[in-house]
Amino acid sequence: MTQTSMTPPELEVPATMTIADNDQAVVNVAALGEQLLGRWAATRRTARELAGRPEVHRIEGLSPAEHRVRCFDQLHYLVEHQAVHRAFPAALGGSDDHGGNIAGFEELVVADPSLQIKAGVQWGLFGAAVLHLGTAEHHQAWLPGIMNMEIPGCFAMTETGHGSDVASIATTAVFDPHTQEFVIHTPFRAAWKDYIGNAAVDGRAAVVFAQLITQGVNHGVHAFYVELRERSGDFLPGIGGEDNGLKGGLNGIDNGRLHFTQVRIPRTNLLNRYGNVDDDGTYTSTIASPGRRFFTMLGTLVQGRVSLDGAAVAVSKLALKTAVQYATERRQFNAASDLTEEVLMDYQRHQRRLLPLVAATYATSFAHEELLEKLNGVFSGEHDSDEDRQDLETLAAALKPLSTWHALNTLQECREACGGAGFLTENRFTSLRADLDIYTTFEGDNNVLLQLVAKRLLADFANEFRGVDFGVLARYVVTQAAERTIHRTGLRRVLQSVVDTGSEKKSAIALRDENTQHELLCGRVESMVSELAGELRGARRMPQAKAAALFNEHQNELIDTARAHAELLQWEAFTAALKQTGDPGTKQVLTWLRDLFGLTLIENNLAWYLMHGRLSAQRARTLGPYINRLLAKLRPHSVDLVDAFGYGPEHIRMAIGTGAEKERQDEAMAYARRQRASGDSPIDEKTLIARREKADAS
Amino acid sequence: MTQTSMTPPELEVPATMTIADNDQAVVNVAALGEQLLGRWAATRRTARELAGRPEVHRIEGLSPAEHRVRCFDQLHYLVEHQAVHRAFPAALGGSDDHGGNIAGFEELVVADPSLQIKAGVQWGLFGAAVLHLGTAEHHQAWLPGIMNMEIPGCFAMTETGHGSDVASIATTAVFDPHTQEFVIHTPFRAAWKDYIGNAAVDGRAAVVFAQLITQGVNHGVHAFYVELRERSGDFLPGIGGEDNGLKGGLNGIDNGRLHFTQVRIPRTNLLNRYGNVDDDGTYTSTIASPGRRFFTMLGTLVQGRVSLDGAAVAVSKLALKTAVQYATERRQFNAASDLTEEVLMDYQRHQRRLLPLVAATYATSFAHEELLEKLNGVFSGEHDSDEDRQDLETLAAALKPLSTWHALNTLQECREACGGAGFLTENRFTSLRADLDIYTTFEGDNNVLLQLVAKRLLADFANEFRGVDFGVLARYVVTQAAERTIHRTGLRRVLQSVVDTGSEKKSAIALRDENTQHELLCGRVESMVSELAGELRGARRMPQAKAAALFNEHQNELIDTARAHAELLQWEAFTAALKQTGDPGTKQVLTWLRDLFGLTLIENNLAWYLMHGRLSAQRARTLGPYINRLLAKLRPHSVDLVDAFGYGPEHIRMAIGTGAEKERQDEAMAYARRQRASGDSPIDEKTLIARREKADAS
Repeated sequence: MTQTSMTPPELEVPATMTIADNDQAVVNVAALGEQLLGRWAATRRTARELAGRPEVHRIEGLSPAEHRVRCFDQLHYLVEHQAVHRAFPAALGGSDDHGGNIAGFEELVVADPSLQIKAGVQWGLFGAAVLHLGTAEHHQAWLPGIMNMEIPGCFAMTETGHGSDVASIATTAVFDPHTQEFVIHTPFRAAWKDYIGNAAVDGRAAVVFAQLITQGVNHGVHAFYVELRERSGDFLPGIGGEDNGLKGGLNGIDNGRLHFTQVRIPRTNLLNRYGNVDDDGTYTSTIASPGRRFFTMLGTLVQGRVSLDGAAVAVSKLALKTAVQYATERRQFNAASDLTEEVLMDYQRHQRRLLPLVAATYATSFAHEELLEKLNGVFSGEHDSDEDRQDLETLAAALKPLSTWHALNTLQECREACGGAGFLTENRFTSLRADLDIYTTFEGDNNVLLQLVAKRLLADFANEFRGVDFGVLARYVVTQAAERTIHRTGLRRVLQSVVDTGSEKKSAIALRDENTQHELLCGRVESMVSELAGELRGARRMPQAKAAALFNEHQNELIDTARAHAELLQWEAFTAALKQTGDPGTKQVLTWLRDLFGLTLIENNLAWYLMHGRLSAQRARTLGPYINRLLAKLRPHSVDLVDAFGYGPEHIRMAIGTGAEKERQDEAMAYARRQRASGDSPIDEKTLIARREKADAS
Repeated sequence: MTQTSMTPPELEVPATMTIADNDQAVVNVAALGEQLLGRWAATRRTARELAGRPEVHRIEGLSPAEHRVRCFDQLHYLVEHQAVHRAFPAALGGSDDHGGNIAGFEELVVADPSLQIKAGVQWGLFGAAVLHLGTAEHHQAWLPGIMNMEIPGCFAMTETGHGSDVASIATTAVFDPHTQEFVIHTPFRAAWKDYIGNAAVDGRAAVVFAQLITQGVNHGVHAFYVELRERSGDFLPGIGGEDNGLKGGLNGIDNGRLHFTQVRIPRTNLLNRYGNVDDDGTYTSTIASPGRRFFTMLGTLVQGRVSLDGAAVAVSKLALKTAVQYATERRQFNAASDLTEEVLMDYQRHQRRLLPLVAATYATSFAHEELLEKLNGVFSGEHDSDEDRQDLETLAAALKPLSTWHALNTLQECREACGGAGFLTENRFTSLRADLDIYTTFEGDNNVLLQLVAKRLLADFANEFRGVDFGVLARYVVTQAAERTIHRTGLRRVLQSVVDTGSEKKSAIALRDENTQHELLCGRVESMVSELAGELRGARRMPQAKAAALFNEHQNELIDTARAHAELLQWEAFTAALKQTGDPGTKQVLTWLRDLFGLTLIENNLAWYLMHGRLSAQRARTLGPYINRLLAKLRPHSVDLVDAFGYGPEHIRMAIGTGAEKERQDEAMAYARRQRASGDSPIDEKTLIARREKADAS
């Protein structure tokens, strides 16, 4: 760990110094914390109290086998402490509380992500599939056992050959009217169910997704309840599997593969809420369109994505609490004075690394709260129209990719910002990152989800013109093209340059204006969508292969568009939350933080704004310096901002997040002070040389 | 792992299709592979043969304790097979081959990064410190035992309180003339040596860095040879330590802490090549300036950084070989046809994710080769002037941050691009990423290194004007300012707009021109440096705290400038290598790849080019589409490009990198073909509905 100064001594220039903060705003940490807890504050408090108990904590250094056993036992602990039944029907001992269920569930991640996901498999996927895809008989038969862990189970959807493309899975369920049974079969290796939680060891039953075939017709993917193992743990006849073995993280969960060779199950094991097969083999469904039926069935499982979004937010909060705390205690390099080293948080680069992540975490947190509201509306039945369900799906598909990537970036930046200490398992960054890694691709690959969001945006765009005659549409496109031409020739840009001339301050004022930020972020999304719609507008009338090629040529833009849309939603959620903030000091600091979030987004896409004439080069050049000034303003409030996340030492459990560094620094400084007081300090060779030179000269 | 289509069926649009490639260029994989092996091809071949042996491979799933033992034993294996002595003197059984030593050493990373780093601690740090900082007696006394592993040792520089700021370490070595001893002492907890490889268990001796104090003067950091443990493994009196315990990776190495309480060592244990203490306590050094002495001493240890750079390149190659191979076999979604799904590599987004990483890996690899040349020149004595040494330091400080961050990004993108399979430990992405994580902050924190590079750039800039009178300098600054004004008012941009008008093709031609790319990349660095120099030019005459504050206000720009400089060096190395490529087809494809690298750099900083008037908005808008066309051109050559990295199955050792997916796809396709042939396939419900509707209509 070497470090050298390569600058000749005469050019050696000190590197750092704090910018004084003249603003007097004070954050009300308690009130801000309350706001962050959101609508389900009480549930979150209960859940955090539980997540702070040693019984549910991860013990680092356990072997994977021991970790699995511990997580399995912890599921029973969760049952005993009523932590996981909130979404189930009151009649069966639940409380029909869907939003609260997710809010409470996602907090488990701070205890151990393996526990969160293992619980998610049992109750959020396996149990929820029986609840939402099954009917009354199924509920009575299996939900009690699922809820109390008598039936540990699997959610067997993904296959080795198909993950995000569920519609193409190859496992079949063929109805045999003679025996009134479905025959479950995985015809080749790629059709095996793969990466299935609880499959390697604990699962006694599974909801298996398979192509339902009856009377020679494939009715698409349906869910079937299939028993897997004897009480002894042996597989039932026709069923086999493999252990997925070690994974990059989440090793408290026994993921595995399952294969089925002509396994017969009763006809009534079809979870038949949305599609049924009569005893004569006739298929019926309340939803005529196979596409909509598929969408509806899978849509009931959106909770998984929502809870990953929330868990990613929680982990980002933990990481930033520790990294910011450490950065205000850790000292390194003494540029500004010979006696005292700077704390890391006073370095501009360190502020640039951490504070935009704090801002994005606030945005992600407020956006998640809106997602929970939406989910609660749909699942409670208060707002569960088709459109509501589609909105929920789209919102989850937009937010989950951003929050899970954000969590990984945050964990990595925090780890690096804490140097070698960040790499020690005792400080948890690396373990949390290893566990959260898979959040970016499971429950829907992030890139695939964003592409779905983009298609929804395009569909909405097209819907605006539904019923409008072609002439109008054509004129609209022309208008768009004309607007693009204006941007291209730089007319609007030139205009802005003129307005801005000579006034950098005016530019900065414009940039921190809420409406300006909104206009820029929103305008970008609208423009991207309409440009894409223009590029793709012939696709519907093209032959399939040609249309596919056209889409593929714009796939990257599609995904960028979805991301821009999701960022806008986050910004809007942050801004809406700001309106709810009462305390003036808190509101001031949060406004700076929201500005930092908004302007960082604009900075990240600055080339777009310049190319499209939305910002003049002159105004764009004020952005970086203005962000730096915001960072300096936020610097004194950085610890308050991460304290408001509300996690205590029992959640953080990282040595450097809970005072270890401060203790060491205090001791080192006390030593230096004693040395100076006693006159014991040896003189520095440099100082000696300087004195001699001075003496020689005089 | 749910996935739903939220687009109403009537708007469902196919998503993908391959763009046909009309270019006939063919890559000569063998010749390209040879070029990548570089000057030390023979050594690399020998090293790769060794790294392919099971004896040195990591076994996943070992406990950390077992992994440590295995790595320790493997060090003996490396000794037996003459893999690690190339840099040592021929007189002692080495071969004085410094470039070859690093080339061979860094290939060990493909066997197990823990082994690479454990070997690096023993021979590259501990051994190299004795070699480069010690004198003949030290060499004779200790090098044989270090070389043959009789003395496993530590490099005890970093302290809990100080990592990258080595000059501020707090361990002291006070000379006691009465006993002719140095007294090594760690006065408080933050002064403990920390994160030290071999310290927890195996280390029997250490090179300890401490402030050398004699006759009441602190002469700064020097290195001392200190015995740590008895043969029994117990610490010697006054010495103690702690195990660092579990880490985020590299758990084959027993990192730990060491503390010293008034530990006495003979005066002659000072490694005294650059500074000596006589028996009466008089300090002498051949280097008068303490700053330059410190720089020279630590400069001998640059090899560590160089080998991390090379290891990061090697791991990036492994990861991309597997991810690209998998992407050409794995099929998902069937947009273009009802029968066949697309291979992942045909999706534009997938190309966008992987191919720029392939391009950057080539750039990183060629740049590393130049770094090795530079190192060999300095350490062989062929080119070892002060300036050469400074250039080597700067080059290593510029390249190591970029390559180590690149490796982490590459591993993560590859892991995500392989979905759930990428998360399985059997496919190694996650383990390699966990191990490589610390490469970004050890041997010099990446951000700190880049700041050093920036200071060197500023010093060079200032040197250009050394001896020039102030009037000239002032005029130069005015010229710079004038040029900036031109950019600001957009004059040059407007000019370019006029030239480009109506010709997107002409813009693309300009962008793919080598000189244009160079001018853009180079111009950005020059402009950033001169702007910074202008902003900071008063700092030398300011009071320390004020100067520090000024620097801090520009710290982020400093680091961005260094990064831009390093990227330019990579681009130049790639371009230089291109000139050495003989085969026309290979040269054509490599040129596309170099263009992709250069244009991706420009795209990443596009806002800068626009704000500074270096690119017109019109030309900038052609960049994205042009990059997409390059991707489509490179797509057919993607496997060739990663095959040329030259790693075989014995190095890759990832199931999905060596054909597992192809086997599964072939089996699934054969099944589908048999089904269609036998007429056994059930009819799809959608098709049935369509047929009925058609029948009803007629």
